Amino acid sequence: MLKSVDLIISPRWILPITPRDTVLEHHAVVVHQGKIIDVCAQSLLAERYVANEEVVLREHVLMPGLVNLHTHAAMSLMRGLADDLLLMPWLEKHIWPAEQQCVSSQFVYDGTLLACAEMLSGGVTTFNDMYFFPESCIQASSHIGMRAHVGLVVLEFATNYALDANSYIEKGTATRDAYKAEPLVTFSFAPHAPYTIKDETLSKINVLAEQLDLGIHTHMQETMHEVSQSQSTYGLSPLKRFANLGLLNSRSVLAHCVHLSEADMQLLADYGCHIAHCPTSNLKLASGIAPITQFAALDVNIGIGTDGAGSNNRLDMFAEMRLAALLAKGKSGDATAISAHRALEMATINGAKALGLDQVVGSIEVGKFADLTAIKMTDLSLQPCFDVASHLVYVAGRENVSHTWVAGQLKYHKPDANTGVFSNVEPHDLLQIAQSWQRKLAAFSNNI
Amino acid sequence: MLKSVDLIISPRWILPITPRDTVLEHHAVVVHQGKIIDVCAQSLLAERYVANEEVVLREHVLMPGLVNLHTHAAMSLMRGLADDLLLMPWLEKHIWPAEQQCVSSQFVYDGTLLACAEMLSGGVTTFNDMYFFPESCIQASSHIGMRAHVGLVVLEFATNYALDANSYIEKGTATRDAYKAEPLVTFSFAPHAPYTIKDETLSKINVLAEQLDLGIHTHMQETMHEVSQSQSTYGLSPLKRFANLGLLNSRSVLAHCVHLSEADMQLLADYGCHIAHCPTSNLKLASGIAPITQFAALDVNIGIGTDGAGSNNRLDMFAEMRLAALLAKGKSGDATAISAHRALEMATINGAKALGLDQVVGSIEVGKFADLTAIKMTDLSLQPCFDVASHLVYVAGRENVSHTWVAGQLKYHKPDANTGVFSNVEPHDLLQIAQSWQRKLAAFSNNI
Repeated sequence: MLKSVDLIISPRWILPITPRDTVLEHHAVVVHQGKIIDVCAQSLLAERYVANEEVVLREHVLMPGLVNLHTHAAMSLMRGLADDLLLMPWLEKHIWPAEQQCVSSQFVYDGTLLACAEMLSGGVTTFNDMYFFPESCIQASSHIGMRAHVGLVVLEFATNYALDANSYIEKGTATRDAYKAEPLVTFSFAPHAPYTIKDETLSKINVLAEQLDLGIHTHMQETMHEVSQSQSTYGLSPLKRFANLGLLNSRSVLAHCVHLSEADMQLLADYGCHIAHCPTSNLKLASGIAPITQFAALDVNIGIGTDGAGSNNRLDMFAEMRLAALLAKGKSGDATAISAHRALEMATINGAKALGLDQVVGSIEVGKFADLTAIKMTDLSLQPCFDVASHLVYVAGRENVSHTWVAGQLKYHKPDANTGVFSNVEPHDLLQIAQSWQRKLAAFSNNI
Repeated sequence: MLKSVDLIISPRWILPITPRDTVLEHHAVVVHQGKIIDVCAQSLLAERYVANEEVVLREHVLMPGLVNLHTHAAMSLMRGLADDLLLMPWLEKHIWPAEQQCVSSQFVYDGTLLACAEMLSGGVTTFNDMYFFPESCIQASSHIGMRAHVGLVVLEFATNYALDANSYIEKGTATRDAYKAEPLVTFSFAPHAPYTIKDETLSKINVLAEQLDLGIHTHMQETMHEVSQSQSTYGLSPLKRFANLGLLNSRSVLAHCVHLSEADMQLLADYGCHIAHCPTSNLKLASGIAPITQFAALDVNIGIGTDGAGSNNRLDMFAEMRLAALLAKGKSGDATAISAHRALEMATINGAKALGLDQVVGSIEVGKFADLTAIKMTDLSLQPCFDVASHLVYVAGRENVSHTWVAGQLKYHKPDANTGVFSNVEPHDLLQIAQSWQRKLAAFSNNI
């Protein structure tokens, strides 16, 4: 007897992420009540299921929705407000005064909504946020329908949001209590950075995080200056100080981690911490390049984040995946470092794992939520295509995303191809030509 | 009396590149017989001109067409054929055998056509190429209507194209003679690289280049290995060897230049050579990061190239501009290194200057050809916009290109916006919200 299901998606290729290094062709994802209940050959569908809705994507790759592991979503409204500046003038003369002037509950709602629209249209289904007025972030992300891991931000100084560390903590815990039943929302504590938080406050956060069963999201060792300052103030690296205060564990998500000693790296590995690698932001603010091939060699879990639009200025996980893979090669001198498949894992399952969500999202597996992204592979600039995984990282861009689902609900789609018009060339003809050469080259390449 | 002209383009903003650091608002570009004959306020148009065609672009930036300073266009057909490999296995096991099997006059025509379609749709109007069968490259680029600076490639070894150095040189000069009247085509000699060409051949090329009034296009000091090999074979760096043989001058375009001593850098400056900086390719093949802030400090002219699709794998000058600016900051530790305006110059006028074309293209100035690119700035991911130049480098992508003209002829356009559809948000409303916050933030930021 046929089973009645909500949705069947039949793409040309599926990149499930788990199992590793796998590309399925002519398979389908079967979705019921928001979850993936089967991944099977398309030829088996007729004998197994009857679907309320079928989406046939003959020219597309289907992959898990991307997980953006470090954002300040509402800062999208400050995109490009001040660029090409040193870190301190950028913060002191532009970002902080603008925040003081403008940041409000409404600002955070509007900015998060804009960021979510940008991220959904670029295939991102989950983001790990840290900003003021987290309740407004939740309202916006819930409205547009994205999965949000919301950091309850803590600082020592007064802002439009709160007056002192205790008031940040109180407001944060109240927000968590008010919204803990939201289906797409989870929480962490987000002490802003080692250099903005006192030991006493960090200890308090540590106790509360354990009581409330929350992880930690913070900025860590982004600049050399921050590390040397910590050494002279505390006689410890920021990481060692966090370790001593009990804040490093398998639920700690550390953004940046650009400047680390060997001992610092070993701490990451020993405590099972997670890295939110933000390659564009680290270059743009001249912080440097995080040594992710060394982290990977120690089996440290590495996800990828865009950071906020103030320091990136695109919330574009395709660009970050590509840059992460490219920089790893350029920095290590090894062109095999961080392959396309590893970069895709970083942007999906690794990010989910960092947030404690790897049992529910981050790969296309039975039992997980149907957080899915489809990428249309027919644009001329994607021709020819010998290897789908390599194309997703080195060739495709977020502009090729055609559909984004969260928990089985279609949250974004682009209705037509919009290939563009040339005066002297017919794109369809050129597509045919490219595909015919691809067949010749592929046949030969397989024979080597 | 009104002057009758072919075309008037009236965009919201014009980024003329020359004069430096300038953004014109509500100005128009007036085009007649392929050339720019006026750049004036839109309010003056009615009293000066009557146009055959008017293009009003209320939400767009108009800038000079991008100049891709280092390509192997036909390799677009090998896009992603083999990735995540060390340089020598990549060349020896994949690229060279595939070339031996497949490269032909037709392959080069088809591959160049595909590359040109990709480049035109990404706002590129001129490319500086080096590949086999240059006559096929010319036929394809002329068909689609791009400006091509065609390298007459020279190697010592036999390929499907030619047997030995002399036969490459003969075929190249014959191609140049046959096509020298093509309106959009110019030439250079392209000895492939110091490590693939003998002194004797280089001397011969030097003499011919002077006789035929051609520049030189070559790969230079891309890898450390190449430099040390030259030191042990010749007792000279490749640059010094080229200098001794007379091949360095103000018409030498040197691709890559990743590994240079202080003395090498001084040679570049002393001889007035031009760099084709290829940041993605250098990372992907693990060659490293070219020290362009040091080149810039010596006033060496730096353009930008994508390299071929085999080692990039996008022929995307927007991505290269952004990466060039980001890497310069990350490598130098100075967030003010290579500003958005400098990166835009690298991708336009600097490239034109390297090719000896800076009197005819590379900026929006009266008397130059109307090689122009329009970028639509209304996509949600481009909101808000405080600074047009910074947005073109750090935010916009080639997907935002709406029109590309070469010598006043429209060669590419994208007929509609295709913003994409969200289930829970109306893009137009979100645009309004973003723009209202932009006004508040900008008003404040100007008051600092």
